[in-house]
Amino acid sequence: MTETFDKRKTIDLRNKHIGPSCKVFFSHDPIKIVRAKGQYMFDERGERYLDCINNVAHVGHSHPDVVKAGAKQMELLNTNSRFLHDNLVQYAERLQATLPEPLSVCYFVNSGSEANDLALRLAWQYTSHKGIITLDHAYHGHVSSLIDISPYKFHQRANLEKNLSVFVAPSPDIYRGKYREDHPDPATAYSDEVRDIIDDAHKKGHRIAAFIAESLQSCGGQIIPPRGYFQKVAEHVHKAGGIFIADEVQVGFGRTGSHFWAFQLQGEDFVPDIVTMGKPIGNGHPMSCVVTTRNIAEAFMSTGMEYFNTFGGNPVSCAIGLAVLDVIQKEDLQGNATRVGSYLMQLLKQQREKHPLVGDVRGVGLFVGVELVRDRIQRIPATAEAQDVIYKLKEQRILLSTDGPHRNVLKFKPPMCFCAEDAKFIVEKIDKVLTEIEAALGLQLPVVMNGIQETYCGGKGHKHNLNRVSGQEAVESHESGPSKKQRKIKNDIK
Amino acid sequence: MTETFDKRKTIDLRNKHIGPSCKVFFSHDPIKIVRAKGQYMFDERGERYLDCINNVAHVGHSHPDVVKAGAKQMELLNTNSRFLHDNLVQYAERLQATLPEPLSVCYFVNSGSEANDLALRLAWQYTSHKGIITLDHAYHGHVSSLIDISPYKFHQRANLEKNLSVFVAPSPDIYRGKYREDHPDPATAYSDEVRDIIDDAHKKGHRIAAFIAESLQSCGGQIIPPRGYFQKVAEHVHKAGGIFIADEVQVGFGRTGSHFWAFQLQGEDFVPDIVTMGKPIGNGHPMSCVVTTRNIAEAFMSTGMEYFNTFGGNPVSCAIGLAVLDVIQKEDLQGNATRVGSYLMQLLKQQREKHPLVGDVRGVGLFVGVELVRDRIQRIPATAEAQDVIYKLKEQRILLSTDGPHRNVLKFKPPMCFCAEDAKFIVEKIDKVLTEIEAALGLQLPVVMNGIQETYCGGKGHKHNLNRVSGQEAVESHESGPSKKQRKIKNDIK
Repeated sequence: MTETFDKRKTIDLRNKHIGPSCKVFFSHDPIKIVRAKGQYMFDERGERYLDCINNVAHVGHSHPDVVKAGAKQMELLNTNSRFLHDNLVQYAERLQATLPEPLSVCYFVNSGSEANDLALRLAWQYTSHKGIITLDHAYHGHVSSLIDISPYKFHQRANLEKNLSVFVAPSPDIYRGKYREDHPDPATAYSDEVRDIIDDAHKKGHRIAAFIAESLQSCGGQIIPPRGYFQKVAEHVHKAGGIFIADEVQVGFGRTGSHFWAFQLQGEDFVPDIVTMGKPIGNGHPMSCVVTTRNIAEAFMSTGMEYFNTFGGNPVSCAIGLAVLDVIQKEDLQGNATRVGSYLMQLLKQQREKHPLVGDVRGVGLFVGVELVRDRIQRIPATAEAQDVIYKLKEQRILLSTDGPHRNVLKFKPPMCFCAEDAKFIVEKIDKVLTEIEAALGLQLPVVMNGIQETYCGGKGHKHNLNRVSGQEAVESHESGPSKKQRKIKNDIK
Repeated sequence: MTETFDKRKTIDLRNKHIGPSCKVFFSHDPIKIVRAKGQYMFDERGERYLDCINNVAHVGHSHPDVVKAGAKQMELLNTNSRFLHDNLVQYAERLQATLPEPLSVCYFVNSGSEANDLALRLAWQYTSHKGIITLDHAYHGHVSSLIDISPYKFHQRANLEKNLSVFVAPSPDIYRGKYREDHPDPATAYSDEVRDIIDDAHKKGHRIAAFIAESLQSCGGQIIPPRGYFQKVAEHVHKAGGIFIADEVQVGFGRTGSHFWAFQLQGEDFVPDIVTMGKPIGNGHPMSCVVTTRNIAEAFMSTGMEYFNTFGGNPVSCAIGLAVLDVIQKEDLQGNATRVGSYLMQLLKQQREKHPLVGDVRGVGLFVGVELVRDRIQRIPATAEAQDVIYKLKEQRILLSTDGPHRNVLKFKPPMCFCAEDAKFIVEKIDKVLTEIEAALGLQLPVVMNGIQETYCGGKGHKHNLNRVSGQEAVESHESGPSKKQRKIKNDIK
């Protein structure tokens, strides 16, 4: 029997019995959620919150079709995949049909972490190499092998040494990264970095097993890699005898709107060797999947070592997975992501015109990031201000959160049933909150006069000569909008 | 929507889309199970199988209370533990109440593998050491860090090097291991092996972070360590600055009958530093847990690295976990495990009197192993015969399987609602099957005359002088039964 406690008791019990490394949202005043429906969550007093962050509740919280499919199968049978079951094979068939043809063999596991760890095992076995190239600020999961390839995490690690077989490439972030939107070909520039890492690793006697990246970097700050980057990286990695792992744990299942998988944004000529899936796959039910090629699967089998996952691919998980695929299709949630996502982007870009704190607005479908800066020229991360926004929105019953290495990127990854009214509502609230914060800081939009731009930031004005400033900032400060080149890059990545 | 295929199509789709390393039971003629209830599973033709192996369906397949709890919570809310929720804290409180007091802090994860990996991370962090001592034939999970500490698996690994921080101690198997039932003090002898490994590791510059063992070794061959072994090991490991991890993934939640946790069989003076749980915890729902002490939890937090597990401890998993605890209590499944387990042991021991193939019968509660041998004196594993038993029982609609390094141990880990009639039924079938196999092999029980025992094995008789044979075999061949010392050992471990 489940009991109901008052909030203070819930907090006390949590402090007593739950690992203190497990953090709550809004740690100063955490929220107790007791039910949820669609894109809304409700606290113990019945207050409704608009949920802009729970990408796991992909087709909407407590979707009746998903609940029904799960409950029905639980009543019948829930057992392991050492018995034949139709749900397992039907789901595998449905999943692979969403992917380019060579990706045809599935392994069902329980979490994105298990999926990424298995992807590494497949890569190590297939290539007989050890080296893994990962992106800076990447997060691939919580098991020990993945902390090793998650700079987002291991930069925080105090007393454990760095894994010597892990190589960190710069994140292909064209706003804050090494090569920015003014670079003539950031896809090549960033992929050349990977090539150089491979060359250097070879010189030191390492061999590369895999390059792993989220198709769109999430914790890393809602980063959209320039189109063509993955193709070029894959070329270098394949040449070195390694494989390409696309981590779709956060961004797959139609979130980008235009495509079912985010790696497909790179173009039809790009096919990863392994795709890992997770979070949204079961709308909250613990399940995930690794899909790979027949060759890689057979190399893994050739060791003679069985792979068994107790809960992975059980009939309940597969029934739920099938229901999620059905709802995405039936409710045209991909179409919704395209429509609502582009409306949200449009509204947020208007905010950028208005609010000096908004440094960059980027996104595809319902994967959107708003990077806050204290200074548009130097792009100083507005970390404290971003936290302030989040807490002020919470008071308005809106759940939003921040991410990125500086925690200054507002991230939008709502349930896929998020609608235009929700977008309008949240942007109006953001407008109000930013206005307040900027007023308190004395922050105003830069005034452009004779090529000299002045930014007033917290009373400390900085003067910059536009000629010394990278393209997008300089140009977008003008009313004329992005340059032709920038428009091309932006179009390419959408 | 889920579809129904004919069995051939299910197999074809499985071959096409499921990783070939994922094996089915009875690979020559796999079973398609479509529903299950209690201790019974039903195939697509409605044929009923008695399930003696699915320890995951702990309180019985498709238990209505568990299904109801899961379905009810899925309808309301399924989200991550960054929001406060009563199910999480209530479940943590209930779980820790089953454990000795210092074990009070929980981390909820999705599988036994995630639990054991987190246990390693906790140990590494708390001790700042790297070395892990594991038992021979141990299996602790499928993620890469656990393959490293699972000799059951890594002995099969072809081209990856052994992890140099992993040390393998002999399994405390008093039937087939280094020190047997005739040894005056196997607990000390086996724990001294661990002490020697620590000393040797120290000489080579290693430092021990943890000793990890299943409280009863499962895949290793249904091994019951001698009472007092864990206390002595813990003493050596603590002295070296390491901690003791008890893996209860397969054997916890009352399976042993007399105790809720299998490590408690060692005596009340034994308290591990970390306990990991899994399989039966959610009756098939993907969930698991790590419980540890406040000190270890705080050392883990001191890195500043957050621990977040997307699905771990979600309200649905916790509701299901609570329902499982309720059913264990309400239906007195622990009492049932004691009663039915001891009846099953009694019946199986009678089989040992009758069948030369039965080398050893060991067990506690509903965790029972029957080790088949071609020769009781030399204890030659009857691997092929064990497979034969399994396949012949399958024809009788009984699901049993084998384990142990030689795959010659029949393992019984049925749902906890397994009843006396089931025990009687299966042992009658085993009796018949063993009689057939022994007749075909020309195998007879040894005849004891004047201290000379003759075993007839496949027509090739071996002569052995009883004086050269280890205690239990020699003595138990007589009608008088085990010696006083042996009785003491056997009583101790129960």
